Amino acid sequence: MDVIYLLDLFGTFVFAISGIRMASRTDMDIFGASVVGFVTAIGGGTVRDLLLDSHPITWMADMNYPIVILAAVPFTFLMGKKLNNYSKTLFLFDTIGIALFTIIGMEKALSFGLNPFMAGMMGMISAVVGGITRDVLCREVPLIFRKEIYATACLAGAVVFYLGIEIDLPDNLNYLLTTGV
Amino acid sequence: MDVIYLLDLFGTFVFAISGIRMASRTDMDIFGASVVGFVTAIGGGTVRDLLLDSHPITWMADMNYPIVILAAVPFTFLMGKKLNNYSKTLFLFDTIGIALFTIIGMEKALSFGLNPFMAGMMGMISAVVGGITRDVLCREVPLIFRKEIYATACLAGAVVFYLGIEIDLPDNLNYLLTTGV
Amino acid sequence: MDVIYLLDLFGTFVFAISGIRMASRTDMDIFGASVVGFVTAIGGGTVRDLLLDSHPITWMADMNYPIVILAAVPFTFLMGKKLNNYSKTLFLFDTIGIALFTIIGMEKALSFGLNPFMAGMMGMISAVVGGITRDVLCREVPLIFRKEIYATACLAGAVVFYLGIEIDLPDNLNYLLTTGV
Repeated sequence: MDVIYLLDLFGTFVFAISGIRMASRTDMDIFGASVVGFVTAIGGGTVRDLLLDSHPITWMADMNYPIVILAAVPFTFLMGKKLNNYSKTLFLFDTIGIALFTIIGMEKALSFGLNPFMAGMMGMISAVVGGITRDVLCREVPLIFRKEIYATACLAGAVVFYLGIEIDLPDNLNYLLTTGV
Repeated sequence: MDVIYLLDLFGTFVFAISGIRMASRTDMDIFGASVVGFVTAIGGGTVRDLLLDSHPITWMADMNYPIVILAAVPFTFLMGKKLNNYSKTLFLFDTIGIALFTIIGMEKALSFGLNPFMAGMMGMISAVVGGITRDVLCREVPLIFRKEIYATACLAGAVVFYLGIEIDLPDNLNYLLTTGV
Repeated sequence: MDVIYLLDLFGTFVFAISGIRMASRTDMDIFGASVVGFVTAIGGGTVRDLLLDSHPITWMADMNYPIVILAAVPFTFLMGKKLNNYSKTLFLFDTIGIALFTIIGMEKALSFGLNPFMAGMMGMISAVVGGITRDVLCREVPLIFRKEIYATACLAGAVVFYLGIEIDLPDNLNYLLTTGV
């Protein structure tokens, strides 16, 4: 449980960085970049919660989410070009974030009584809406629509997680395994 | 009732095709095209349900919607360029879909106690949000903003439907008439 | 109370004009421009209400909002190029609208029991989502991401309003002061 929560905050941090970075490559100012970072980080979970009619929206009831996102702003600008040297690491983190958000979204949807297919849809929505909104705001063709690796990470996460439930793996082990994939 | 439901599924199928087709003209992969098809098909109804606070969202409670949309993916790719020969038919279907979604949206809004003007707005939202989102994702200027025929189909649908109610037409006849317009 | 309501309607009118004007500079027709005006005017409040789970959505329960927006359509087209001579006035009104929507959003969020930081977020969302959506639909890089004046108006509004509450200013005075800033 605690591990998942920390991973969720970590995913939020990573997504915020990816939003801020893409925005600062356009002619947006620091305020614009922060907004894009914010939307990237919370977009997916927000849409998922609205669709599930789950209130309050996760990040609105827990200050840790905004704090983590606000922390990503100075972090990204201070690291600046150094982050480019870690682009493979960032890409890896991004993929982990996507797999993670998929799983968390699925679990939440299952707890709301949705069937596994719909839960998979909710997981995918949690994982990709933030990035799609980031790309629309920065006027890029959404990355997830072009890089199959993302979609694959997302689907693989969903399938492994579901199989994990079926064969009754202990929950935490299941989470780690799935994120590992 | 059953006729309306089948027409709704048919409209969903047609909208999904229009999303998949537009997406595959950009550099999106098949996954991206499927997402665009999905959003095109369910976008309007989802926003309508969220605004009306109507839960569960229609497509989340009925597997037939996702099934119809998933079926549209191989259908569109297998038909491929053949579909271009039917562009007038597709355009006709699209217009029918818009009129139909307008009516279904209006009826739902009226059943939620909205006044006729607001119900007309909800009908329009049901009909156009999917297509607008499709165009934004594909980075086109939204078609509905340029082709008055669409807007006209939509408004005509609304007005005829409302008049139909006023003069107490039997519901199913009213549906058919309105879609005919 | 009445003053705030009138200011809210005025802000809605101003936002609708800004949407219609930007849309008519693209190749959209009058229907498209009206839709963009509508979304610009009600986008922020709608997202705020959805996030707060506040139903009915403000503009859906009060015909004055749609009426004011519909009135903005002929107003903008009749004034036409004359409006260009008033671009400073329009910019001023826009900024007032943003400060005003921020305050109204904050107050609503506080009345829903959110903490001041989250209320500030809701205020900002009320103020900027409409304009961002307008810019996305018109395929512009969102203005608020480039012009710090907007963000500043918005933040200043929030801070002054919050301080005003803290030192127990009479509510109406507080509103006027904040909008003045």
